[in-house]
Amino acid sequence: MSLKTIKAMLFDVFGTVVDWRSGVAREAGAFLSRHGRQDIDPLAFADAWRALYVPAMAKVRDGTRPFTPLDRLHRENLEAVLPHFGFDPAALPVSELDDLNLAWHRLDPWPDSISGLSRLKKGLIIAPLSNGNVRLMVDMAKRAGLPWDAILGAEVAQAYKPQPQAYLRTAEILMLKPQEVCMVAAHNNDLAAARACGLQTAFVARVKEHGPGQTTDLTPEQDWDVIAEDFNALAACLEL
Amino acid sequence: MSLKTIKAMLFDVFGTVVDWRSGVAREAGAFLSRHGRQDIDPLAFADAWRALYVPAMAKVRDGTRPFTPLDRLHRENLEAVLPHFGFDPAALPVSELDDLNLAWHRLDPWPDSISGLSRLKKGLIIAPLSNGNVRLMVDMAKRAGLPWDAILGAEVAQAYKPQPQAYLRTAEILMLKPQEVCMVAAHNNDLAAARACGLQTAFVARVKEHGPGQTTDLTPEQDWDVIAEDFNALAACLEL
Repeated sequence: MSLKTIKAMLFDVFGTVVDWRSGVAREAGAFLSRHGRQDIDPLAFADAWRALYVPAMAKVRDGTRPFTPLDRLHRENLEAVLPHFGFDPAALPVSELDDLNLAWHRLDPWPDSISGLSRLKKGLIIAPLSNGNVRLMVDMAKRAGLPWDAILGAEVAQAYKPQPQAYLRTAEILMLKPQEVCMVAAHNNDLAAARACGLQTAFVARVKEHGPGQTTDLTPEQDWDVIAEDFNALAACLEL
Repeated sequence: MSLKTIKAMLFDVFGTVVDWRSGVAREAGAFLSRHGRQDIDPLAFADAWRALYVPAMAKVRDGTRPFTPLDRLHRENLEAVLPHFGFDPAALPVSELDDLNLAWHRLDPWPDSISGLSRLKKGLIIAPLSNGNVRLMVDMAKRAGLPWDAILGAEVAQAYKPQPQAYLRTAEILMLKPQEVCMVAAHNNDLAAARACGLQTAFVARVKEHGPGQTTDLTPEQDWDVIAEDFNALAACLEL
């Protein structure tokens, strides 16, 4: 592997580019306040909602459910998580649930994300390879100013990471060999799946993704092709 | 129909956003010169190559051929058109043909395209809805500075315009109703197909697309929802 062969960088988004936990907690906090439930920790609400993310995708991955965009899975998960906090989703206005579901569209980038992506964009194609659907990624990018060259990912590939098809189909759409593509993620399992498909790999630790008590993905667990402190350091590794 | 409901504008690209004829002729001219064939008009070469575009897509549209990205169709058409100008494609280096095929990735925008798109982007989602494949659109956008929010179109929808699926699937990916989407094109037939799917329509005449002798698409042939002189006038119609 050589960094000189990289023509595109594909990014995990939730946790790697944006801080989903604070963003979802911000919107959940407003919702909880409106309903007089300031006793509930919005971060706990965000964590509980996010915890249903992987199980919800499992049925799509194992083929028991056709490909379903993440926005719909998030919406179903919202209805599933609300009762744990004492809410009956059927008693809430649909429009309020729909809006709360868009919390995932309104997440803030980590401080280095935009400057680093802007540098990388000068020499490479940059695109999300997220499990988030296209509209979610478009709304997020427009609000936050993420300078993507294209919106790729699970919905375009019609497969959720870590299925090989998510990585391989995305490289194919870009008309690149797997080794010409570098997956960037804060998650070792995402990079392991990308490496198994022949992609190059870059690890950027996001040690606050899950809050101050985070225990996972604090360090690289394999000899990834690039290990960088943040997106600007990543750009510097590629002399961009 | 009301312009106030529009949330996304989708653009035809070849002819509407970029000047394919001059761009292809520029690259064909360099190729012809290298081979001592300055006697051939590069514009005639561009026109002949482009003339095979619609027939090549017909087999995909009628289902006799699986979806095939436009880059591959362009490449096949190049090999088909070269003999008409006295070239044996089998006698030319593959790398030279591959590079000439990328002429379609290196087209220049019309003078108003970038400024108009930048204005429209402030209030709407903007994306290509071209028959060009994703990589072609990405390369073109990076070179020319086209500020797309996403790269959509035939390859993502897996259907070539004017098939209804090309328009409807693109709206679906954007999670918008057809009437919330406006198709922008310099071609009346593209707009007619979009309107039949329920999209709003905007006509921007490009009377030099086919050169000084152009006879088609000089004027709007239906009462399109918007008729604008250029992309800046289009932005002004939407108060952007």
